[in-house]
Amino acid sequence: MSTAKTAEHDIFSRRESEVRSYCRSFPTTFASAEGAILTDTAGTSYIDFLAGCSSLNYGHNDPDMKAALIDHIARDGITHALDMYTDEKARFLDAFERLILAPRGMTHKVMMTGPTGTNAVEAAMKLARKVTGRETIVSFTNGFHGMTLGALSLTGNAGKRGGAGTPLNGVARMPYEGAFGPDVDTLAQLEAMLDNPSSGLDAPAAFIVEPVQGEGGLNAASRGWLEGLSRLAKRHGALLIIDDIQSGCGRTGGFFGFDGWDVDPDMVTMAKSLSGMGLPFAALLLKPEHDIWSPAEHNGTFRGNTHAFVTARVALERFWSGNAFPAEVQAKGERLGQRLAEIAAQVPGATVKGRGMMRGIDMGSGDLAGAICARCFDLGLIIETSGAHDEVVKVLAPLTIPTALLDEGLDILDTAVKACVQSTKMAAE
Amino acid sequence: MSTAKTAEHDIFSRRESEVRSYCRSFPTTFASAEGAILTDTAGTSYIDFLAGCSSLNYGHNDPDMKAALIDHIARDGITHALDMYTDEKARFLDAFERLILAPRGMTHKVMMTGPTGTNAVEAAMKLARKVTGRETIVSFTNGFHGMTLGALSLTGNAGKRGGAGTPLNGVARMPYEGAFGPDVDTLAQLEAMLDNPSSGLDAPAAFIVEPVQGEGGLNAASRGWLEGLSRLAKRHGALLIIDDIQSGCGRTGGFFGFDGWDVDPDMVTMAKSLSGMGLPFAALLLKPEHDIWSPAEHNGTFRGNTHAFVTARVALERFWSGNAFPAEVQAKGERLGQRLAEIAAQVPGATVKGRGMMRGIDMGSGDLAGAICARCFDLGLIIETSGAHDEVVKVLAPLTIPTALLDEGLDILDTAVKACVQSTKMAAE
Amino acid sequence: MSTAKTAEHDIFSRRESEVRSYCRSFPTTFASAEGAILTDTAGTSYIDFLAGCSSLNYGHNDPDMKAALIDHIARDGITHALDMYTDEKARFLDAFERLILAPRGMTHKVMMTGPTGTNAVEAAMKLARKVTGRETIVSFTNGFHGMTLGALSLTGNAGKRGGAGTPLNGVARMPYEGAFGPDVDTLAQLEAMLDNPSSGLDAPAAFIVEPVQGEGGLNAASRGWLEGLSRLAKRHGALLIIDDIQSGCGRTGGFFGFDGWDVDPDMVTMAKSLSGMGLPFAALLLKPEHDIWSPAEHNGTFRGNTHAFVTARVALERFWSGNAFPAEVQAKGERLGQRLAEIAAQVPGATVKGRGMMRGIDMGSGDLAGAICARCFDLGLIIETSGAHDEVVKVLAPLTIPTALLDEGLDILDTAVKACVQSTKMAAE
Amino acid sequence: MSTAKTAEHDIFSRRESEVRSYCRSFPTTFASAEGAILTDTAGTSYIDFLAGCSSLNYGHNDPDMKAALIDHIARDGITHALDMYTDEKARFLDAFERLILAPRGMTHKVMMTGPTGTNAVEAAMKLARKVTGRETIVSFTNGFHGMTLGALSLTGNAGKRGGAGTPLNGVARMPYEGAFGPDVDTLAQLEAMLDNPSSGLDAPAAFIVEPVQGEGGLNAASRGWLEGLSRLAKRHGALLIIDDIQSGCGRTGGFFGFDGWDVDPDMVTMAKSLSGMGLPFAALLLKPEHDIWSPAEHNGTFRGNTHAFVTARVALERFWSGNAFPAEVQAKGERLGQRLAEIAAQVPGATVKGRGMMRGIDMGSGDLAGAICARCFDLGLIIETSGAHDEVVKVLAPLTIPTALLDEGLDILDTAVKACVQSTKMAAE
Repeated sequence: MSTAKTAEHDIFSRRESEVRSYCRSFPTTFASAEGAILTDTAGTSYIDFLAGCSSLNYGHNDPDMKAALIDHIARDGITHALDMYTDEKARFLDAFERLILAPRGMTHKVMMTGPTGTNAVEAAMKLARKVTGRETIVSFTNGFHGMTLGALSLTGNAGKRGGAGTPLNGVARMPYEGAFGPDVDTLAQLEAMLDNPSSGLDAPAAFIVEPVQGEGGLNAASRGWLEGLSRLAKRHGALLIIDDIQSGCGRTGGFFGFDGWDVDPDMVTMAKSLSGMGLPFAALLLKPEHDIWSPAEHNGTFRGNTHAFVTARVALERFWSGNAFPAEVQAKGERLGQRLAEIAAQVPGATVKGRGMMRGIDMGSGDLAGAICARCFDLGLIIETSGAHDEVVKVLAPLTIPTALLDEGLDILDTAVKACVQSTKMAAE
Repeated sequence: MSTAKTAEHDIFSRRESEVRSYCRSFPTTFASAEGAILTDTAGTSYIDFLAGCSSLNYGHNDPDMKAALIDHIARDGITHALDMYTDEKARFLDAFERLILAPRGMTHKVMMTGPTGTNAVEAAMKLARKVTGRETIVSFTNGFHGMTLGALSLTGNAGKRGGAGTPLNGVARMPYEGAFGPDVDTLAQLEAMLDNPSSGLDAPAAFIVEPVQGEGGLNAASRGWLEGLSRLAKRHGALLIIDDIQSGCGRTGGFFGFDGWDVDPDMVTMAKSLSGMGLPFAALLLKPEHDIWSPAEHNGTFRGNTHAFVTARVALERFWSGNAFPAEVQAKGERLGQRLAEIAAQVPGATVKGRGMMRGIDMGSGDLAGAICARCFDLGLIIETSGAHDEVVKVLAPLTIPTALLDEGLDILDTAVKACVQSTKMAAE
Repeated sequence: MSTAKTAEHDIFSRRESEVRSYCRSFPTTFASAEGAILTDTAGTSYIDFLAGCSSLNYGHNDPDMKAALIDHIARDGITHALDMYTDEKARFLDAFERLILAPRGMTHKVMMTGPTGTNAVEAAMKLARKVTGRETIVSFTNGFHGMTLGALSLTGNAGKRGGAGTPLNGVARMPYEGAFGPDVDTLAQLEAMLDNPSSGLDAPAAFIVEPVQGEGGLNAASRGWLEGLSRLAKRHGALLIIDDIQSGCGRTGGFFGFDGWDVDPDMVTMAKSLSGMGLPFAALLLKPEHDIWSPAEHNGTFRGNTHAFVTARVALERFWSGNAFPAEVQAKGERLGQRLAEIAAQVPGATVKGRGMMRGIDMGSGDLAGAICARCFDLGLIIETSGAHDEVVKVLAPLTIPTALLDEGLDILDTAVKACVQSTKMAAE
Repeated sequence: MSTAKTAEHDIFSRRESEVRSYCRSFPTTFASAEGAILTDTAGTSYIDFLAGCSSLNYGHNDPDMKAALIDHIARDGITHALDMYTDEKARFLDAFERLILAPRGMTHKVMMTGPTGTNAVEAAMKLARKVTGRETIVSFTNGFHGMTLGALSLTGNAGKRGGAGTPLNGVARMPYEGAFGPDVDTLAQLEAMLDNPSSGLDAPAAFIVEPVQGEGGLNAASRGWLEGLSRLAKRHGALLIIDDIQSGCGRTGGFFGFDGWDVDPDMVTMAKSLSGMGLPFAALLLKPEHDIWSPAEHNGTFRGNTHAFVTARVALERFWSGNAFPAEVQAKGERLGQRLAEIAAQVPGATVKGRGMMRGIDMGSGDLAGAICARCFDLGLIIETSGAHDEVVKVLAPLTIPTALLDEGLDILDTAVKACVQSTKMAAE
């Protein structure tokens, strides 16, 4: 970090908590953003391969969303109305029904939770326990679902859970697909535990699972495994909660991370890119037969962010009215996979992980992955790691990124990998 | 609810979860809002004595905030940047330091939590446990702090806690001031419990307390009690967390609910009106000596809502640069108190509760209070109840409401009370 | 400790865990015992004012019990039979029904738990939760109920609970009678908490209470308070569990610590002197309408100690066939009270506490109380402290102790108190 | 059950709780016992293949133990002395050191816990958490460790845990050897979970494991698996607790269930046959470096049962002074295994399980196993089932049973199996 930057950042070190994190990897001050480009106060531009951790699937400041939001504000449209009925909530629900739910034959209702993913997860946990009268929720190794106490209890990461300062109970954390290597069928083991009344695993209220584990290192469940889990849940009277917060809204190609699969979720948690523009917004989709909430049994001041209703509706209308967008993402994802495979080939033992536009390279070491990301930043690319050991370099570019810009970013990544592998070799010699 | 309204609300009953609540009390669809007036799609206007449960202390769609936000969006200012440094975050922090913290001699740092009050509370709980190495957090009867699992554990209300479906531990819920009537010194009892090693009350990590209990029925702690609690915390090595989510941002006159009192909070949770305009935004203020977070030890996708930084900064500059605004709120609050006393005098046993612009009438019964609020809505006033039995009619008008409009709303309340008292009498005869 | 003793105790320091405790206060090796006299390997005799913490209410090695037990062993009577039916279990139950339950109109059934008080408490907790479907159990400040995890959760003492190494939940610890001084009606406060749905106190499964708190410092509940608690439990659908482990079997005069009072316990935990001779034995009395256990739902290898059935039956027949014994204990208890009052008068601020033959002197300081007990041992009297600060010198002599021997012991106590008060004065000068 | 028996059992149905269980399988009233023979009040004798669930390894009423105990009682030896030093405790400790610990090079100290296995387990859990500062204890599928709240949390059986009525936390229940069939290395999976910081399995305070799972269905860990677990514990800084309550005291041949193996337990829980004669007695062996208890940090009224010290010492001297007894048990166990194999051959799919004199037949169905045991009782043999589905017929004869009597019992079992298999066939036709 240069001296100039240090001066500029005085207010942050003086008055912002040490908990801040991304700013440590990208030590500059951003001032504007458009599409896949972030620009700092000095006028330097960066390609954004982080996209707000998948909160900006449609890029920064989409012109249509901007226009609709400005118009809404200018006409004194509702900004905050608790969970009262508003015209814009009706328009959003109408679009969501018409473009997302109805075409997929989904009868789900929408619960406007507090506008954070973790709040949608908390609501899902409460409801699963209420519906089934059971307590245990099964989550999976390397899963991440949020940082409030309930969601945190589902999380695999020991450091994050340790932050609770109090035990996190009511959860059984079981092996995700591949947790014991490709040859062990973790679903069969889960079933054996459930079938043995003395296994110590209680009949679960729910399974909560990410189709692709974003924070956990881009582990992607196969179609067969997720379909098997869906059947297993039904057989054991447990609800299936798909946490599609990071993998949804087109990130893996379809609107949902399980689109087109024979997976029947009782609930789906949505957040991140749901508002389209990066505004705080989250929702829980739940089957009507589970909608046994009492009014306000789970509530919150900012449930139903009206600004987000406006932009989310525009996003749905613009990107999900036909099949062009998912097809484009699909194609872009395949191209991404190929280029990553080429880049990975330079690193001994490295492997490509993930699915759709949610892919990355397991570099085998957190140190190497970190060094690569740092080098990328110097070269004008914002990119981050994930995984239990921060060993995976993760590409989460906006889905709308032009192919040329995607390639430009990947070229930077390629350069950074080359440089870091070279340094490593030299250090080893 | 009229037939016309039912038709309009089809999409909500079809696709929005039964958990929705305020819309049941105010069954119309709102389309725009300005100052203290909400207008529905039919063009009917309502005086707003709910103000987003104190999220709209400066009224709906303040023109200066609107202008600043539209300008920010139009110039492609950052919408979402995780917790990276941005120009607007710097400007907000600078204003907050200059106008709020420095004048009060507060050394606190600001933690941008997920943009909901409950998230700020969860962060405070984690940090208190980490700092002290203790687990128990003392909360108070009738307290309300949020609906995620950690915050929920602090909550007095049995129904809300029951929604968890899992035990809520690590908390001791002790009597708030006045819980056993005016003659019992609950602070002395709390101290006796803390001084007895066999009392069953463990040495607490923290006390969390609302200066005025919004949901709990407008119970207002006295200066002496809150100052005593502050001393008690220090003496027992526990942190003092002031939950100023509903009582802060001017609601009781000062910026904080404890302004001018000899109360020394280790942490303050802020949300609701913090953004100024009703946008999702929350923060935790913490003393620098407690800022022992590891980076990202508590995180969240929407921490640091950039739109909210813009409007929050405008709110600070416009309302908190001098003493005019607090003085005006103070005066308005007194007027409110007098008028409520006159209205309450019509209801046998009714009492006025609260402080500043956070006052209401304990009607002695939830049925009566509910009937009064329903009648108000028919007469064009949005107003709600609170309290353990929903027995308190609560006035949470925007602080900026013109006196004439405040009076107009109170006239409606007066009319509604008269009518309901009359009905009750007739029913009793 | 003399050199001679140290040598003798080598095996203990070498191979017995540091957790051992009473042996530290009474550093000699005991070899035989009869009535109220313990004799060590050197032939020195001690008057026993500890009586196995009320496990030897009928004295050591009662001749009738000895004879019956020797006879049983000699004839190859059952020693261990799990919970199969045995002749001696039938004889015990028959005597217990005839001499204890029927005369008091108690319909209770007997559950043979593992032969420790804590196990009876654990069984009571399970059953209360099963019967009511509720989780919270209310226990009281300064209460002590055992050291296994469930019983420990009920315990007031912070040090003991801290030993768990894991949070102890599902319990609300509320003020016992007198916890806030004689003028505060703790029962009324408990009721206020129960009547307020936002108090944070959940509807309890049960109240568990000791008629006299043995470990907690000989706090004796008044008849009015305990009867009020019994009514309160009924009114709130909670079970009343009387923990009579230390206060039962005649210790306060009647067989139960609530004999003759209008107290209607759903369950009573029994242990300590239940076997009559100090053998491990415990039982839970439960009303037949609560006897909804599945077979073996709570079990244990040593439930129903057959040797104890033999001696317990003899104890019942010998001491509880008429009214002579309780009358004698009553008289002896009053005498004890008078003498303790005289002794206490020498210590500024000291007060007599307790009831029946369960009395002691609050010396105002744990140091003083400890010094007095140590001096007593040197003078040939075994006596211990209790209370949150070990400040109470506690007399738990066998109920069968001859009056002359009781007086002899109290003379020693008097001498020790005089000496210690004198030392304290000299140290102060 | 005959009418005569019903009359005799009136007192039990009238006054003993419905929780009673073994008496339901063996509906008669026992009056005396000697060696491996139980005799009821009608004079009918039964061969005992249950042996107090392994509490009577040396048979009923061993003459030497009887004589020593009668002598002790007759001479007014101590019956109850809390945990004060006694001559008989010294003699027991001396024998235990000389005959058991020293020959095996074990430095362990002995903690006298409450005289039940579950109490020893509770003490071990507390100590493991205190020593390591960690909370999670790993137990295993099908494990059983007791019924008090801490021990119960370790138990696999869902029904037993469900009896708690409150969540049982702080435990991770992992697959025992063979839980997923013979081809899955459960130890490797456990290690993978421990090595992955995002697995959701916290660093454990301890592993607690039975060398042979008595209640869980006679699953016997192999030497390799148990030695591997011992190494794994060390590598991860966790303590190894061997629960040898049912498998110890010679049941598998050696005094401990791990005798002669390279297993290094930090703690060993002992109970059941420890007293030799079936008296309530339990102990925790702990390495001196873990003996960080404060005095009385875990206590209990009946810790250190003096009668049991007497008989336990006799048992040690008589059976463990040389190698004859273990060799005899070894040989008898092999004979048992052969005969069981022959009997099992008659039942399609049945398999022999267990080790030493702790063996049985998995009949493939709880109904069949139950029918066989019922038939055995009619023929004069006391024998019970175990396993998650009660599918294993379990032979727990006294180790001292004469070979002819063992054969006689097995003949009865053989006859019962034949009859039941025949009935099953006929029912199927």
